Amino acid sequence: MQSTITNVLDRVNSPDDVKQLSLEELNLLADEIRQTIIKRVNITGGHFGPNLGIVEATIALHYVFNSPDDKIVFDVSHQCYPHKMLTGRKESFTNPEKYGIYTGYTAPEESPHDLFKIGHTSTSVSLAAGLAKGRDLRGGKENIIALIGDGSLSGGEAYEGLNNAAVLGSNIIIIINDNDMSIAENQGGLYKNLKLLRDTNGQAENNFFKALGFEYHYIEEGHNIEKLIDLFNKVKDTNHPVVIHMHTIKGKGFEAAELDKESYHWIVPGALDNKEPAPLCESYESIMADYITKKYNKDSSVIAISPATPAVSGFTKEFREKAGIHYTDVGIAEEHAVAFSSGIAKNGGKPILAVMSSFIQRTYDQLSQDLALNSNPVTLMISWASISNADATHLTCFDIPLISNIPNMVYLAPVNKEELLKMLDWSVDQKDYPVAIRVPVGNVISTGSEDTTDYSILNKFKVEECGSEVAIIGLGNFFELAKEVKTKLVSTLGINATLINPHFITGIDEELLNSLKNNHKVVITLEDGVLDGGFGEKIARFYGNSDIKVLNFGAKKEFTDRVPVETLYQRYHLTPDLIVEDIKACL
Amino acid sequence: MQSTITNVLDRVNSPDDVKQLSLEELNLLADEIRQTIIKRVNITGGHFGPNLGIVEATIALHYVFNSPDDKIVFDVSHQCYPHKMLTGRKESFTNPEKYGIYTGYTAPEESPHDLFKIGHTSTSVSLAAGLAKGRDLRGGKENIIALIGDGSLSGGEAYEGLNNAAVLGSNIIIIINDNDMSIAENQGGLYKNLKLLRDTNGQAENNFFKALGFEYHYIEEGHNIEKLIDLFNKVKDTNHPVVIHMHTIKGKGFEAAELDKESYHWIVPGALDNKEPAPLCESYESIMADYITKKYNKDSSVIAISPATPAVSGFTKEFREKAGIHYTDVGIAEEHAVAFSSGIAKNGGKPILAVMSSFIQRTYDQLSQDLALNSNPVTLMISWASISNADATHLTCFDIPLISNIPNMVYLAPVNKEELLKMLDWSVDQKDYPVAIRVPVGNVISTGSEDTTDYSILNKFKVEECGSEVAIIGLGNFFELAKEVKTKLVSTLGINATLINPHFITGIDEELLNSLKNNHKVVITLEDGVLDGGFGEKIARFYGNSDIKVLNFGAKKEFTDRVPVETLYQRYHLTPDLIVEDIKACL
Repeated sequence: MQSTITNVLDRVNSPDDVKQLSLEELNLLADEIRQTIIKRVNITGGHFGPNLGIVEATIALHYVFNSPDDKIVFDVSHQCYPHKMLTGRKESFTNPEKYGIYTGYTAPEESPHDLFKIGHTSTSVSLAAGLAKGRDLRGGKENIIALIGDGSLSGGEAYEGLNNAAVLGSNIIIIINDNDMSIAENQGGLYKNLKLLRDTNGQAENNFFKALGFEYHYIEEGHNIEKLIDLFNKVKDTNHPVVIHMHTIKGKGFEAAELDKESYHWIVPGALDNKEPAPLCESYESIMADYITKKYNKDSSVIAISPATPAVSGFTKEFREKAGIHYTDVGIAEEHAVAFSSGIAKNGGKPILAVMSSFIQRTYDQLSQDLALNSNPVTLMISWASISNADATHLTCFDIPLISNIPNMVYLAPVNKEELLKMLDWSVDQKDYPVAIRVPVGNVISTGSEDTTDYSILNKFKVEECGSEVAIIGLGNFFELAKEVKTKLVSTLGINATLINPHFITGIDEELLNSLKNNHKVVITLEDGVLDGGFGEKIARFYGNSDIKVLNFGAKKEFTDRVPVETLYQRYHLTPDLIVEDIKACL
Repeated sequence: MQSTITNVLDRVNSPDDVKQLSLEELNLLADEIRQTIIKRVNITGGHFGPNLGIVEATIALHYVFNSPDDKIVFDVSHQCYPHKMLTGRKESFTNPEKYGIYTGYTAPEESPHDLFKIGHTSTSVSLAAGLAKGRDLRGGKENIIALIGDGSLSGGEAYEGLNNAAVLGSNIIIIINDNDMSIAENQGGLYKNLKLLRDTNGQAENNFFKALGFEYHYIEEGHNIEKLIDLFNKVKDTNHPVVIHMHTIKGKGFEAAELDKESYHWIVPGALDNKEPAPLCESYESIMADYITKKYNKDSSVIAISPATPAVSGFTKEFREKAGIHYTDVGIAEEHAVAFSSGIAKNGGKPILAVMSSFIQRTYDQLSQDLALNSNPVTLMISWASISNADATHLTCFDIPLISNIPNMVYLAPVNKEELLKMLDWSVDQKDYPVAIRVPVGNVISTGSEDTTDYSILNKFKVEECGSEVAIIGLGNFFELAKEVKTKLVSTLGINATLINPHFITGIDEELLNSLKNNHKVVITLEDGVLDGGFGEKIARFYGNSDIKVLNFGAKKEFTDRVPVETLYQRYHLTPDLIVEDIKACL
C-alpha cells in the first residue's frame, strides 16, 4: 500500500524537488500528502482539518518561492504538516517509528525552513513584518510571506500587524487562508466582510484589506494548484504590501471533516475508525457547564463567554445552542473578552469567562486595568492549569505568576467538585471582586458532601488535619500529593504533619501561618505551576524573618517541550519520596 | 476676571443644566470651558491638546444623551476634563484650592457619570460593548457610547472591540474622535484610510468601518455644537451598532497647541508662560538616545522602535528625524512592537524597543511566545519603572513580576550611567537572549569610569563592599538606598554590612548567596517595585531551608492613586531608619 500512495512524495526531500515536478505530479503529490496526513493523524492524533485544507497552497508556495531564502511564517503553525513533509521531515509522517520526532508546530531547531516556534494565534503578520524590516535594514531582496487563517484575524495582534504591514513600503505578502472557520464558528464584523468578499469573488466595495491600504487579490479556488501558482508568481518579488485572500475548505478531502469542521479541527488517535464514541463521563468542565445552565435558568443576568475555545471549557455544541443569549463566543480575542466581561459586570450582568491557562497570557493588561483596577465582579475559569507534557507553545503552568500578582484579583484553587461548585456560586453572586478559579485538572474528585466554606472571608486557609513539626500546604491540584506526602511522613519519619488546603492563591493566611510557628519546624508548599513569582514564594517571604524553614515545590522557570509529566515530576522533586527526602534533609 | 469667564459655566452643575441652555449659551459655555482648561492646566500641568479638542463634542453629548442612564466611556479618559466640568466637578478646574481633588482620568468613585477607571488606551469599545451586553441581558434601553481617539485605534484591543461591537445586534454608538494625531504622529494603514475619509467628507469607497459592518456617519465640523447635536440626535436610540467619524482639531483654540500638537499633548506647569525653556540636561533617556545614534552610525542593522511614546524614551523629534530608517514608531501597538522586534532580530537586525513600564503590561504573551520562546536577541528598554506617585492607571511598579518570571528573558538593573551603557552595548551585540533593561529613574549617577562587567556571565551579582552579619542586596534604583542603609548600620549598630549590586533580576547568584551563609545572619533585598512575584521573593525562597534570615523590602501589592512617594516609602518601610529598625528586630 505505502509504495503506491507515496509515489511522488518518495522523490520529494526538499522544496527544490517540488520545483522539478509537472502539474500532474504536483496534483498527485497533493493526494499523497493528504492520504498520509489522514493515516498518520488518525494514529497519533493532531490537527486534522487545518492541515487537509492547506495541502495545495503549501505545495504552490514551495513551487513558487525559494524557502528558506524566501521566508514563510505560519500563523499558529498548526497547519504546517504539509510544509514539514516538503522540507525534509516527511519521515515523521510516513514512518510510524518516527512519528514523534518532530513537534506539530514550526520549530527553528528542526529546520531552517521554520522561522519561529509558534503555537498561539494572530502573531504571523507582526513577525513577518519584522522579518521584512530586518531584510530592508540589510538591503536584502527575499520575499516575506505570512500565512494566516481567518480565525486568527480576530486577535488584536493580527490587526496591529496588518495596520503596520500596510505601511511597510516594501515586500510583504500576507495570505489570508479563509476557510470560514475558527476552531468553532467565526465571530465578528470582519467575518461578514470575508463572506461578502467570497460571495462577490473579491469584488465587493467594502473591503477590509483595501481600506487598510493593501493591494488585494482574491482566489476562489484555493485547492487549484495551477491557479495558486499563477497568483503566487504574479505577486512574487512585489515591492509593496499585498494581501491574497484565498478561499479553502477546512478538512478538504475527508468528507466528515468537511461537514463537521469543529469536531475534526483536532482529533484524538483512532477518531476516524468509526468506533462507538466513548461515553461522556463527568469532568470538571461538564460540572461547570451544568452549573452555568442551572444558574442562568434561575438568574437571567448570567452569561458564559468563550474566546473561541468553548470545548476546552465544557461549552459543547449542545450547551451553546441551549444557552441562547446566555452564551457568547467573542472569537480569538482574549483582551476583548476580559474588558467585555468587565463592562457586562458593571452594567448588572454576571459574566463567567472561561479561558485556557496558556491563553490567559494573552490578556494581562486587561486583567489589571480593565478588570482588577475597576474591581468588577467577573468570574474567570482558568482551565488546564498545571504542569503538563504540552508543546512548548502551549504550556499551562504560568497562570499563577500572571494572575496572582495583580492587586484586587482573587484567585482560588479548588481541590474537588464540591469546592469548585461552591467557589463558582460564591463568585458569580458576589459584587466585590474579580475572581479567577483554577479549574482542577484530572479525574473528578468528590467528597459527596457540600462545601460550606464562606469564601467572602478572603485568604483564609483551611487546616484539613492538625499535626506538628511539618506543615504541608497543598495548593489546588497538588492537594492530593500533599495527602500522599503526609502519609509518607508518618510511615518513614513517624511525623504527623499538618495538612493545609489554602483555597486562596492571591493572599496568605497570616494568622494561621504565625500559629504554625509554635510547634512546626518546616513548612512546605506544593503548587502545580512554575515557582518563580508563584504561590510558594509568598510563604517563603512571610517566614523570611522567622526560624521556620520553608521548602517550595513546583516547576522550574523553563520552557519544556513535550516532556512527560513523570520526567518533570522527577526533575522538580514532585513525588512523595523525593519530597520526604528533601524534608528530611531540612529537619 | 473669574466672574466674566464663568458666566454660563457658573449655572451648570449637571448635564440637566446643559440641556436647558440655548445654542448661544452652549457656545459661550464652550468658550468658558476652554479658557478654564487653559488657565488651570497651565498651573497644574496635565493633558492639554486632547481636552481642548473635545470641548464641543462633550457639551453636545451631554445635551443629547442622558448620562448617567446613557453611558459614555472615554478611551484613555485623558480627554475627560470637559466631562468632569459638566458633571458636578467643575470646582476642580475653577477653584485653585480644589485643583487636586479629582484625578485627571475618569473615576467611578468620583461620580456615577464615570463608568470605569481608565488610563491605558484602546479599551473603550470593548468596555462599552460589555455595558451594552449587560443592558441587553436585563432588557434595558439606554444608549451606550464609546468615545475613542484615532491614536487609540492602532491598539489591538480596540480592533477586537470593534470587530465584536459590529455584530452586537443592538444599540452601541462609537465616536471616532479623529484629530489626525496620536501623542506623536499616527502610524499605520488605518490612518491613511481615516485621511481618505476626511478628504472625501466620508464618501470614499474604501471604508474601514463599513467593511466591519457599521452604520457610518462622517462629521467634518467636530467643533460645531449645532451640527454635533443634530447628528447625535439622529443616532440616539439606534437599535444597531453605529460609528460616528468626527473630525476635530487637537489643541483647538490655543494656536501654539494647534500647530505643535505633540508638544502640547501634555504640558508641565507654566508651559504656556513663554519662559525660556529649561536647558536640556543629561538624563538616562538622553544617554540611551545618544548611544543609539552612535551605534547605528557604526552598525546599520540597529533600529530603535517606539510604540507611540517616543518622548518617554528620549526619542526626541530631532533624534527621530536624524535616525531615518533606524527609527520606527509602530503606533500604540505594544504587542506588534514586541513580535515585530523579534522578527527583525531573526532576520539580522538589532532592534532596541523602548516601552514605558506601565505599558509593557500590554504585551505579556508576545514577550513570552513571540520573543522569549524564540530566544531572539531583542533589547527592551523599560522606562520609568519605579514606585511612583502616579495615577492608579499609570503605575510603574509591576514590570518585574511581569517580565522576570518568563523563561529565557534576561532582565537587567543598572545602577548608574556606565552600567546602563555597558549593558546596552552588550545586549545589542549579543545573539543569545532577549534582554530587557530597567532604565534607572531619577538624576543621572555617574562613576566616571567605564563598567567592565561581562554581562554574558548570567546572574552574577557584584559584591561592592565586603562585610559581615548583614548583607544588603540593592537592586537598580534602590542601590543608592542600600548604600544609605549600610552607612546607617555602621552608625547605629556598628555593623559593617556587605553591599551587593545584583545586576540581574531574572536569576540569582547561588554561589554568592551560599557563601554569605558563612558569616551573615540576615540578607535584605531592596527593590523599587512590587514585592509579590518580584526579585526579593526569589532570594527568600533560596534561603528557605537555611538559617539565614531574609527581609524583602519593596511595594505592597496594591493600586495606589497619586500617593506621594514619601508616604509610600513610609508605608513600605523604604527609608534607611525603618529598614535598620527591621533589621535590628531580626538580629
